[in-house]
Amino acid sequence: MIKVGIVGGTGYTGVELLRLLAQHPEVELAAITSRAEAGSAVAEMFPSLRGRVALKFSDPVSAPLKDCEVVFFATPNGVAMQQARDLLKAGVRVIDLAADFRIKDIALWEKWYGMAHASPELVFEAVYGLPELNRQQIKGARLVANPGCYPTAVQLGFLPLIESGCVSFDHLIADAKSGVSGAGRKAETHILFAEASDNFKAYGVAGHRHLPEIRQGLSFIAGAPVGLTFVPHLTPIIRGIHATLYAQITSEMDFQSLYEKRFADEPFVDILPPKSHPETRSVRASNACRIAVHRPQGENVLVVLSVIDNLVKGAAGQAIQNMNLMFGFDECLGLSQVPVLP
Amino acid sequence: MIKVGIVGGTGYTGVELLRLLAQHPEVELAAITSRAEAGSAVAEMFPSLRGRVALKFSDPVSAPLKDCEVVFFATPNGVAMQQARDLLKAGVRVIDLAADFRIKDIALWEKWYGMAHASPELVFEAVYGLPELNRQQIKGARLVANPGCYPTAVQLGFLPLIESGCVSFDHLIADAKSGVSGAGRKAETHILFAEASDNFKAYGVAGHRHLPEIRQGLSFIAGAPVGLTFVPHLTPIIRGIHATLYAQITSEMDFQSLYEKRFADEPFVDILPPKSHPETRSVRASNACRIAVHRPQGENVLVVLSVIDNLVKGAAGQAIQNMNLMFGFDECLGLSQVPVLP
Amino acid sequence: MIKVGIVGGTGYTGVELLRLLAQHPEVELAAITSRAEAGSAVAEMFPSLRGRVALKFSDPVSAPLKDCEVVFFATPNGVAMQQARDLLKAGVRVIDLAADFRIKDIALWEKWYGMAHASPELVFEAVYGLPELNRQQIKGARLVANPGCYPTAVQLGFLPLIESGCVSFDHLIADAKSGVSGAGRKAETHILFAEASDNFKAYGVAGHRHLPEIRQGLSFIAGAPVGLTFVPHLTPIIRGIHATLYAQITSEMDFQSLYEKRFADEPFVDILPPKSHPETRSVRASNACRIAVHRPQGENVLVVLSVIDNLVKGAAGQAIQNMNLMFGFDECLGLSQVPVLP
Amino acid sequence: MIKVGIVGGTGYTGVELLRLLAQHPEVELAAITSRAEAGSAVAEMFPSLRGRVALKFSDPVSAPLKDCEVVFFATPNGVAMQQARDLLKAGVRVIDLAADFRIKDIALWEKWYGMAHASPELVFEAVYGLPELNRQQIKGARLVANPGCYPTAVQLGFLPLIESGCVSFDHLIADAKSGVSGAGRKAETHILFAEASDNFKAYGVAGHRHLPEIRQGLSFIAGAPVGLTFVPHLTPIIRGIHATLYAQITSEMDFQSLYEKRFADEPFVDILPPKSHPETRSVRASNACRIAVHRPQGENVLVVLSVIDNLVKGAAGQAIQNMNLMFGFDECLGLSQVPVLP
Repeated sequence: MIKVGIVGGTGYTGVELLRLLAQHPEVELAAITSRAEAGSAVAEMFPSLRGRVALKFSDPVSAPLKDCEVVFFATPNGVAMQQARDLLKAGVRVIDLAADFRIKDIALWEKWYGMAHASPELVFEAVYGLPELNRQQIKGARLVANPGCYPTAVQLGFLPLIESGCVSFDHLIADAKSGVSGAGRKAETHILFAEASDNFKAYGVAGHRHLPEIRQGLSFIAGAPVGLTFVPHLTPIIRGIHATLYAQITSEMDFQSLYEKRFADEPFVDILPPKSHPETRSVRASNACRIAVHRPQGENVLVVLSVIDNLVKGAAGQAIQNMNLMFGFDECLGLSQVPVLP
Repeated sequence: MIKVGIVGGTGYTGVELLRLLAQHPEVELAAITSRAEAGSAVAEMFPSLRGRVALKFSDPVSAPLKDCEVVFFATPNGVAMQQARDLLKAGVRVIDLAADFRIKDIALWEKWYGMAHASPELVFEAVYGLPELNRQQIKGARLVANPGCYPTAVQLGFLPLIESGCVSFDHLIADAKSGVSGAGRKAETHILFAEASDNFKAYGVAGHRHLPEIRQGLSFIAGAPVGLTFVPHLTPIIRGIHATLYAQITSEMDFQSLYEKRFADEPFVDILPPKSHPETRSVRASNACRIAVHRPQGENVLVVLSVIDNLVKGAAGQAIQNMNLMFGFDECLGLSQVPVLP
Repeated sequence: MIKVGIVGGTGYTGVELLRLLAQHPEVELAAITSRAEAGSAVAEMFPSLRGRVALKFSDPVSAPLKDCEVVFFATPNGVAMQQARDLLKAGVRVIDLAADFRIKDIALWEKWYGMAHASPELVFEAVYGLPELNRQQIKGARLVANPGCYPTAVQLGFLPLIESGCVSFDHLIADAKSGVSGAGRKAETHILFAEASDNFKAYGVAGHRHLPEIRQGLSFIAGAPVGLTFVPHLTPIIRGIHATLYAQITSEMDFQSLYEKRFADEPFVDILPPKSHPETRSVRASNACRIAVHRPQGENVLVVLSVIDNLVKGAAGQAIQNMNLMFGFDECLGLSQVPVLP
Repeated sequence: MIKVGIVGGTGYTGVELLRLLAQHPEVELAAITSRAEAGSAVAEMFPSLRGRVALKFSDPVSAPLKDCEVVFFATPNGVAMQQARDLLKAGVRVIDLAADFRIKDIALWEKWYGMAHASPELVFEAVYGLPELNRQQIKGARLVANPGCYPTAVQLGFLPLIESGCVSFDHLIADAKSGVSGAGRKAETHILFAEASDNFKAYGVAGHRHLPEIRQGLSFIAGAPVGLTFVPHLTPIIRGIHATLYAQITSEMDFQSLYEKRFADEPFVDILPPKSHPETRSVRASNACRIAVHRPQGENVLVVLSVIDNLVKGAAGQAIQNMNLMFGFDECLGLSQVPVLP
């Protein structure tokens, strides 16, 4: 049983952490902070948690975070980099669900995120929390940078192709679609129901912050820079990411088998049979990633379809998977929810 | 550990039973039948169950249902009344999620359901499976008639008022709204996405089959016939029922307190604080019923708001709650999922 | 051809006025104001208007509103009451789509709207713009108070019953459901897609501002105070209101015929055949109101179903209908759009 | 004024033709056929047409189609090829909204559509009804093959690039997303609300019937075979197609200007300013196609975003645009609806 704290609990990744941690047998929720909501019950803001989470929001300053074994940051970008150092010094492990520690190239991070980095040395130490890639390092980590939602779906989808070197690294394309919860629980006009419902659009085509994160990950695996075009879209679903990936084949192999073998031992990655089309709802509210591999019309373009729940495998679920690894728990503990369908 | 069978597993109540039973620690799924799908894997039809349910659909004739301790009927109306007798004789307990055993007045049932009843004597024996009303009888039952979705939301909402006799029984009104999964997984035009999405309508105003079921329940509690107008509506959500109930006050009391006391020991009924408005998503994918009580403008009309997930408390979850009672398990076993929000 | 101005064009009623007025053969759009957006093209904010509306937003102070024959206020409550007087003095007619001139009882208005009224004398002069009730007065009006969306649907639905006196006025119930655009184009959390989608809830049960407006209208027709319980709900559709109305019959008549006769000459009110259930999409993007009358189970409760598009008959369309009457145009001019279905 | 007939009026393209033709000043609706619904009023099936379309469905055999100047086929594939010949002989012009006359290579058509073609000679005669490409031929055509919805969005998006030869023809990618009405008004399980809502998926990745149609079009423009990967997806909106197109630049030019010039005189194609992201709702219920051109991160991949309403520019609207051309009407007649937003 470990004591767990959450900084910034009023957003969607916060309430999702609460939903999952409330059912985790080795976790005691010790504190959840929110400056604005300090003193009010969590279940008042999120009635779904009535009878399940008795905590009140506490002020970030006075919250007993240093008494925790691990603290999750479910905050906007730029917060964890200010506060993680003190917690780490106090022996608390940290998992950041924001982007502060994801990009190793500080100058690149500062360019995309538009601020100076407060803790470059922690970026160096932080382990990128994609268990399918970095399981061993995560086990020993003090500080984990939890991957972004798009980067999780896209990297898992491309992983076997990059590792095996069977496609061209020059013209990878990731056409990704996200549910609206990916934009967060912010009062902004463009994500109002009457704006986002019955509507479909691309956004950030010129450049999205997840582009450098995905590129870093794929280039690291490839051992060389990769050329990637990444186009995110907003689709009117609450949860879910669907990444449609395109790569040009450079050497032949049994691609279905390649994927099945690569992920054979992964508890949360499910390779579908040939000719399948994974649906976002098939992973709704669960930590699964489902992938299908296609080679349309027998031509030399491979199409990979990869789906996750952006709030679970794309955020809170993966964070708990990382926590399980860091503390030696069964990797699936507290993450065995069957997806909700319909 | 008990062996459980499901007859008719290809509809929404079937897959929801599977989702919940797959996580139930005292259940071994022994058989699930479907004539049309016999031989194919359940997880092929419902990819959300991949890795979690290994069963194949089996033919209703050859399925080992008599080896089960309990069999759920997730079939259309008129099936369970044909098959329950043999199972009961073999010592198998039966929970029918359809309407075959809900209405005690056989003639009335035959009028509303448009067929002759095949097992009137079982109707007599069957216990109406609303635990908040019939907990003791359910514990000893061989045959449980699981309530309809609307009847669950409406009866739980009216229950304290009828029991206390503080409102007029002549002019009760239940204005109910259901998500589209309530119509089942049938290929019918009016529930197509392009028909039901971005649209709201009433239906069955002249008379809906749940009307006699609700009337029977309320009249039984009242000890006298009640006058009820019941208008169901279709709202473009997948899961959820919202019942808005109106009653004319005939004697004063503290209505908030009345509700809180009546359900104080009920694990699945949650009375919200005064001035609350329960949302369907606050119970999504969970077995909870949340209720709020209002007296607008201090006048003599009481407005009660009652929400459930039609597939859980309104069907599969309540069926499992009944199973737990029948087999002496903790009533909440396997039903502790935190609602999925957002 | 008349010159038309719009004050406050960045909300949903504003863009809907633009959509409809851009196709009106007797209208020249002269000005549309927005302090925040002054100088930017309307079509930049609303790309649906590209190539159709060339106007830029102008500053409210410098906009040539006094050169217009009529000015629509598509502003928050409390704006028109400040600015209408000057326009009227300059000979400009005014149609207010907000609530400033709807309630005749100034004290009542001030209680519900929480501010002092700036122009009580104009409230006295203003004509309530429900053409089906006040057609003659509207024709001669300088100032029209355009009805609210709920009040339009509810009053049209109750009108024949109240006029004929065949139901009890003590216990009218209006259970109304609105699409999310009814909440306006404001950046508020509770109407985000991820909050309002796949969700249904009541709100404002204790008291909604449209309650006194509806009561005033019904009481005026009845010639006596009416008892009304009004419960609004939010349903995840963009446009549309569905009002389900309940009344207790006190004297028998042919109710279907009552409705058909009352609205026989009304171009925008359509009485459906017996046993019909109007759908909100059947009036989507049109100025129609469709109504069905039911007497379930032959009992003494009448159920009336009334649907409108809240942005058209519930706001911009009705405002243009009023403009047509005020300027002697054909009442239907510019309002002949066929509803968009699916 | 011309007499117009519609064969097969019970689907979405049928009702959309009715919505648009009912407002067309030069059209008299003479007949609409449906075997199943013969004798019943069109407005009974589609209440949105009440008061606007007085026609009844007539039996295909007895309908006065030969008295019409033009007949639209809004039928499943394989019907028009059986019936068009007789109509053409009788001097009636024909516009087929299905796929019977789209593919010039009969063997290819038969392979993809799984039936023998009944009128190969008419395929030879038929003009492919994409006005932006074939305006002159359409004007003189007796028989027009109205393009598919995906092919319209994709071809308009690629057109300037292919004509100018500035991109590689080997690896074009069209990642397209369609609203659910594109699947038609058929009672099929996978397009039920409870299946398709809150869900996103690809389908037909192995091969979709619109692939050969798009390839034929692009190859014809290119004067050489093009390599195209086409992946369609289902997104939970009612109407709308969003095509995201990828092409590798082979020679530099001002791409924004290229698009603006190519479509400068096109009444229904709107090139958005640089950095724009067209939304499907910006063309909802209108005949517009809006396109934006991006070159992300200055690299050598061009991303083109193209949106249409699949039922209008992708079906009924384009068919009427073709009719206007064939009969010498203003090309925009009856097609001036402003898109419905929100």
